[in-house]
Amino acid sequence: MSKEITSREQDYSQWYNDLVLKGGLADYSAVRGCMVIKPYGYALWENMRDVLDKMFKDTGHVNAYFPLFVPKSLFEAEEKNAEGFAKECAIVTHYRLKNDPDKPGKLMVDPEAKLEEELIVRPTSEAIIWNTYKGWIQSYRDLPLLINQWANVVRWEMRTRLFLRTAEFLWQEGHTAHATKEEAIIETEKMLHVYADFAENWMALPVIKGVKTANERFAGAEDTYCIEALMQDGKALQAGTSHFLGQNFAKAFDVKFSDKTNQLDYVWATSWGVSTRLIGGLVMAHSDDQGLILPPKIAPTQVVIVPIYKGDAEKENIDAVVNTLTAELKSLGIRVKYDDGENQRPGWKFAEYEMKGVPVRIAVGTRDLANQVVEVARRDTKEKSTISLDGISNYINNLLTEIQQNMFNKAKDYRDKHITKANTWDEFMDILDNKTGFVSAHWDGTSETEDAIKEKAKATIRCIPLNNEQEAGTCIFSGKPSSQRVLFARAY
Amino acid sequence: MSKEITSREQDYSQWYNDLVLKGGLADYSAVRGCMVIKPYGYALWENMRDVLDKMFKDTGHVNAYFPLFVPKSLFEAEEKNAEGFAKECAIVTHYRLKNDPDKPGKLMVDPEAKLEEELIVRPTSEAIIWNTYKGWIQSYRDLPLLINQWANVVRWEMRTRLFLRTAEFLWQEGHTAHATKEEAIIETEKMLHVYADFAENWMALPVIKGVKTANERFAGAEDTYCIEALMQDGKALQAGTSHFLGQNFAKAFDVKFSDKTNQLDYVWATSWGVSTRLIGGLVMAHSDDQGLILPPKIAPTQVVIVPIYKGDAEKENIDAVVNTLTAELKSLGIRVKYDDGENQRPGWKFAEYEMKGVPVRIAVGTRDLANQVVEVARRDTKEKSTISLDGISNYINNLLTEIQQNMFNKAKDYRDKHITKANTWDEFMDILDNKTGFVSAHWDGTSETEDAIKEKAKATIRCIPLNNEQEAGTCIFSGKPSSQRVLFARAY
Repeated sequence: MSKEITSREQDYSQWYNDLVLKGGLADYSAVRGCMVIKPYGYALWENMRDVLDKMFKDTGHVNAYFPLFVPKSLFEAEEKNAEGFAKECAIVTHYRLKNDPDKPGKLMVDPEAKLEEELIVRPTSEAIIWNTYKGWIQSYRDLPLLINQWANVVRWEMRTRLFLRTAEFLWQEGHTAHATKEEAIIETEKMLHVYADFAENWMALPVIKGVKTANERFAGAEDTYCIEALMQDGKALQAGTSHFLGQNFAKAFDVKFSDKTNQLDYVWATSWGVSTRLIGGLVMAHSDDQGLILPPKIAPTQVVIVPIYKGDAEKENIDAVVNTLTAELKSLGIRVKYDDGENQRPGWKFAEYEMKGVPVRIAVGTRDLANQVVEVARRDTKEKSTISLDGISNYINNLLTEIQQNMFNKAKDYRDKHITKANTWDEFMDILDNKTGFVSAHWDGTSETEDAIKEKAKATIRCIPLNNEQEAGTCIFSGKPSSQRVLFARAY
Repeated sequence: MSKEITSREQDYSQWYNDLVLKGGLADYSAVRGCMVIKPYGYALWENMRDVLDKMFKDTGHVNAYFPLFVPKSLFEAEEKNAEGFAKECAIVTHYRLKNDPDKPGKLMVDPEAKLEEELIVRPTSEAIIWNTYKGWIQSYRDLPLLINQWANVVRWEMRTRLFLRTAEFLWQEGHTAHATKEEAIIETEKMLHVYADFAENWMALPVIKGVKTANERFAGAEDTYCIEALMQDGKALQAGTSHFLGQNFAKAFDVKFSDKTNQLDYVWATSWGVSTRLIGGLVMAHSDDQGLILPPKIAPTQVVIVPIYKGDAEKENIDAVVNTLTAELKSLGIRVKYDDGENQRPGWKFAEYEMKGVPVRIAVGTRDLANQVVEVARRDTKEKSTISLDGISNYINNLLTEIQQNMFNKAKDYRDKHITKANTWDEFMDILDNKTGFVSAHWDGTSETEDAIKEKAKATIRCIPLNNEQEAGTCIFSGKPSSQRVLFARAY
């Protein structure tokens, strides 16, 4: 086979790259750190986007679009936010090229076309959006403002990985404005729950909802809520974040509103986002050494049908059966593809769709048809069954539901088995090095200890889980008193 | 009224800006030449995008996503394309900011973080895409490649106008690769017809399909097909283009394929795009001095219902009727909004939805309800009718169809009356200056004459219509022989 995949055991990192490249999700590009999202990967992203978009609209949000560029003077207005992103941003300084007098046919930046003020390619849009909100918000009647944007952003990362960390990525960023602190916090939490719902019920990806420590907060946030998932190599992945921004951006951009008693106050803010990074998490959480395994609910193709035949007469018989079956499946809302291409043999197609993670494959052969049956193979367990054509559409529909549930259960089972309590430093290190996964351990609550643990163990506090159990203990690192365990892990 | 609109007669250009700003479609931003697309404008764009996207998919195309940045060396590879865009592109030269030692709290571009090779923010993506296609195309089996991208692009225009000409805009760009010249030309024409279908049957915007002259071609194209629309001030607007690129990009990026006989040849290409500029055309083609008039098929809200009542008891009666009506309309797939907000009076709401161009407004009042009727107002003609509640849903559904058709007819009637033949230079100038619109005139076919006419009359050749009638004549400018008339106009 031309499309060999490195096994997970052999090289987990290479296995991941193989899946992304050979599964047709993405490709490298000529631009450092930027990827090309290929049609199959983009179709997956479209499905994810459409589901999320509906969830946002169902919770009262509307979409809008703000400029790609942030003038430097706006970018630096909220100091913590600026500090957090200053070291990794792409900066536009000129607006024209001219012919290079020394190199015929080549172009050079025209030094006379230098911008008076540099433009930052947005790494996130709080600055440009809050500068705009200033013109839109005068009174409590203008609030809440519940706006989302689907956009590309750029963060000049030094070490990049397809989907997981790229210089440019696609995402959505919600930016809301509220009259009260309480309402903004409710919004922040609401969107975290939306993200968790999406991850678990659509991506089959179990997540832990929690709050970040001060060290790990979004630059400019008062509080960062997150959902944390676990990959098959025992490393954690931050899958989405929702930030309570307090009045930081309102103060930086002077956005005040008059309340019902005509008092002026700064507006309260949230922002929240998920990105194409989720696709990386999806790949790493579910797939195996034969290729991708995609959850039916968001898979671009849910069912693929492959004919097995010799000669035109057999093909015609199969076509007739498949046409009926395809129509039935489509009427149930199932995304089905009939691959009767003649350039490739059935065995090649089987391997190809296994690689691409299509949840269900139906093979329709002449001998089977004589018995009014077909062979149904599910991608998650690789089980094959001989199924009667009578009632097969409902069978397939139920099977897709079962696969979705099974994928979630399997990932949850793995994740649950990889949350381990550590009570001493040695236990802590042993778990990180050998068992891997999340380590639930006491921490004294200081940034210094957190930094020291990160330095020594290469593990970070992924989150303080929501509704965390309060329990007296001593910090695994400093030995100082602690009131609760937090979740550590090595992470992407 | 706080939202006064300049009339078309008073100042057409200001009228347009008023509609865009006060109709809630877009806003100016802090970034030179870039706009904010507001929620109402973005909802309109989403509807347009979804229809187009389905049309592209129905014609066999898939979506993908390519990087925002184009390295300078790729940008300059296709010389004509590079020359066409070099003077209006945003250039990223650095990747990091640092604290400004002279200005505490301010940032400056870090001179040590200069890119080895500058990156151009894509003004169009042929270069980055054809550089990618090189890796995807080896054999005729890999063709055709039918890919579309929804993206933002940046062209550093000196004079910008909301939607019509902005430094950053949203668009889609199709980029296809073919084994033969014939197939590529068929694709170019097919997509032009898709655009015309969309403009006429969804936007109610009649268009003329044609081919651009060499002067007006896309930089790097062998042929540019276009659809041209007419605005209410008699100026033309290029509403979409589809380019036959020949083998220019394949040669620039060395993209060859082996055909069935194992011969190597360069791949044939097309590209085609429409953008948020269409929204500008939509506004200018249909609206009036009271506000926007949106075609029902793409209007974010098709029907708005406003209650007229005194006291809670009356409101409850109205609510009961409206809830039933709303459910009925929704079951017909109609986008309906019930505005029972208490902050504004009915008269204010009437003006607001007139401004926003909602196609149908239903006023539900207590007195009318006693007679089992409501008042229905259509935005396009401003006619009001008293309509029985019995069967009203179907009435509204039909009315929406009628409004859509009426808007198209009205625009087409205006357009048809504004295609005028000129046989002398004086006639030509008189039409341009007074009657306005398209002028159908003989042209000698040379770029020199075209340039001279543009210089003297500020009019360009909008297109040579498809299937243009061949007719011997003499050029209105040079007096030289001509074989056909072409369409001139002043244009946006």
